[in-house]
Amino acid sequence: MNQAQVLGTPVADTVREALAECRAATLPALRTAVESLHPRLARISAYHLGWCHRDGTPTDGHAGKMLRGTLAMLAARAFGASTASAVPGAVAVELVHNFSLLHDDLMDSDELRRGRPSAWAVFGRGPAVLAGDALLGRALQVITEVRGAPRQPATAVLVAAVDDIIQGQAADLELDGCPADGVDTGDYLAACAKTSGLLGGCLEVGALLAHAPAPVARMLRSAARDLGVAWQIADDVESLWGDPAVSGKAAHGDLRRGKRTYPVIAALRSGTEAGARLATRLSATETPAEAELVSLARLVEEAGGREAAERAARRHLDQALHTLSRAGGEPGTVKTLTALFRHVLARHEHWTTPLPTVSATKGAAL
Amino acid sequence: MNQAQVLGTPVADTVREALAECRAATLPALRTAVESLHPRLARISAYHLGWCHRDGTPTDGHAGKMLRGTLAMLAARAFGASTASAVPGAVAVELVHNFSLLHDDLMDSDELRRGRPSAWAVFGRGPAVLAGDALLGRALQVITEVRGAPRQPATAVLVAAVDDIIQGQAADLELDGCPADGVDTGDYLAACAKTSGLLGGCLEVGALLAHAPAPVARMLRSAARDLGVAWQIADDVESLWGDPAVSGKAAHGDLRRGKRTYPVIAALRSGTEAGARLATRLSATETPAEAELVSLARLVEEAGGREAAERAARRHLDQALHTLSRAGGEPGTVKTLTALFRHVLARHEHWTTPLPTVSATKGAAL
Repeated sequence: MNQAQVLGTPVADTVREALAECRAATLPALRTAVESLHPRLARISAYHLGWCHRDGTPTDGHAGKMLRGTLAMLAARAFGASTASAVPGAVAVELVHNFSLLHDDLMDSDELRRGRPSAWAVFGRGPAVLAGDALLGRALQVITEVRGAPRQPATAVLVAAVDDIIQGQAADLELDGCPADGVDTGDYLAACAKTSGLLGGCLEVGALLAHAPAPVARMLRSAARDLGVAWQIADDVESLWGDPAVSGKAAHGDLRRGKRTYPVIAALRSGTEAGARLATRLSATETPAEAELVSLARLVEEAGGREAAERAARRHLDQALHTLSRAGGEPGTVKTLTALFRHVLARHEHWTTPLPTVSATKGAAL
Repeated sequence: MNQAQVLGTPVADTVREALAECRAATLPALRTAVESLHPRLARISAYHLGWCHRDGTPTDGHAGKMLRGTLAMLAARAFGASTASAVPGAVAVELVHNFSLLHDDLMDSDELRRGRPSAWAVFGRGPAVLAGDALLGRALQVITEVRGAPRQPATAVLVAAVDDIIQGQAADLELDGCPADGVDTGDYLAACAKTSGLLGGCLEVGALLAHAPAPVARMLRSAARDLGVAWQIADDVESLWGDPAVSGKAAHGDLRRGKRTYPVIAALRSGTEAGARLATRLSATETPAEAELVSLARLVEEAGGREAAERAARRHLDQALHTLSRAGGEPGTVKTLTALFRHVLARHEHWTTPLPTVSATKGAAL
């Protein structure tokens, strides 16, 4: 039985159900949090979240899969929390996630988000900065209003996750167009915190809200952090060798920007002749032409960068699943959580085989 | 004895000493907090704080008066806290203040801050957004790491103050060039939260760190919020009728931008003929010419806008001082706090007499 069968319809259904259930449970409180903002900021945030068009007329949707909220909710439920007591954690991590998206799009001048013009492109940079700040502020309010013993540790974990995102984003800026030998996988892992920090925070906050012991909550955090690193590396692989029609990303976008992704770093550090040739070509000051990108990607592969990246992603995913299985919790919910972990990497599980259409969703954004 | 004598040399000395003492006690911890950021963000923040030049070479200074830190520290000391246990509060509010300055300069496209190019103008908008985020993150970390009972209420107060700043800033955006009759003083007061929210938070956090009872801490917050409103209104008066050489602001800057400041709102709502003429002229779509600004300011004055603003500022200052005196605390420190409250408005105390040179400092920035 191969991975595609393991990841077949039943798993995808479990995941789809868990995501839908979390959305249903979380959206009302998320809406309340966002709608309590100043109307100008509420509008920008609602647009960003896919709840309304730019003129404020409502849509019938929600942008995003609510993966983070679902992780927080499942972690809470695995340790006995009711849905109601898990909701503040799910709301808080979704707010933090969307704070970081608002600011990141603006920082990277990304004009599209979830298939629509980014909030900053619609409402201007200043208001988008302020709306991001406001979502972060609301996230903190939601978590500091939790009642009882979990409030303090959950607040501390959320604050630490926010810090991880920011420091990771700063480290990520360093990966852009630095000297060929200027970064190693340690720098890369530091940058991964922009994703893995909040994923870790989701599980830890969820577990804490369920009064799970602190060491168990930390174990869950560690599992989700590995998941984040695995996803980041797999995303790099997809950016170089994936099908833009499936990934929803421009082919070789990272390579064009001179970004030091995992496969590129591994190739540059491989000590191979192909790695040396790659270094020379990446040191050229001009942006590589479209045609050259394909040959650069081939050089990365020749130097072993692709294989190293796939191996590393697999290792981090295995580690994540292993840690998750050791953390305990109610078996049924842990099984769903495991399926969700696999789902995150589903598109990337079959490096050399066709992508599994069942569990794949278009657009790689976590 | 007039106010100038009350505010004479001894008061100014007390204030100067308190500010210097707070700076000395707080700077090491503030530096530690900032220097623990990613080096790229630490550099931007250190530049913004006046600790280094744009290339990273150190200066021997600190930009800003550390008014907020001093307020937090004095409130803590007034209720028996040691300097050491007051420091986290002072550090946290200074970090929040500088987070908001970094983002505000960018939002307003202000190219100068404390006489130097703004951080966004030097390092770019994206990195400045991230540095602001990072300072906010550090502020929250500092306060969530406080030990013992005050941690939770102090965290909640800081989070509420952050929210006030953001909602106030959003409300402030609404005051820009809206229809002549579109705002009232209620809208104006909502916008004041951008300043008064954090001032209130300073005193409340300080008092809480000293284990002062919650109602006392709230009373101090209320006092500082009135101080913030008084300052904001006085600042509006100065922007219209002050001496640019003293205020460090462009003459009539607010009027040129069509901003609904307190005197303008009061004039528009005065029911006078001058107010009606002002409304007509402000409804014109063109930006008023330089020469016209002087006559517009005269219209505001004729309609009673200046007098109303001066009266309102005075009323809020009186209220602030009254509330402060009722909150209790160690008399010597409360006296210093009172002097500091007066100092904040010192430049504005003498609407019709020359500015008192002793306690005035150039540049109106709080």
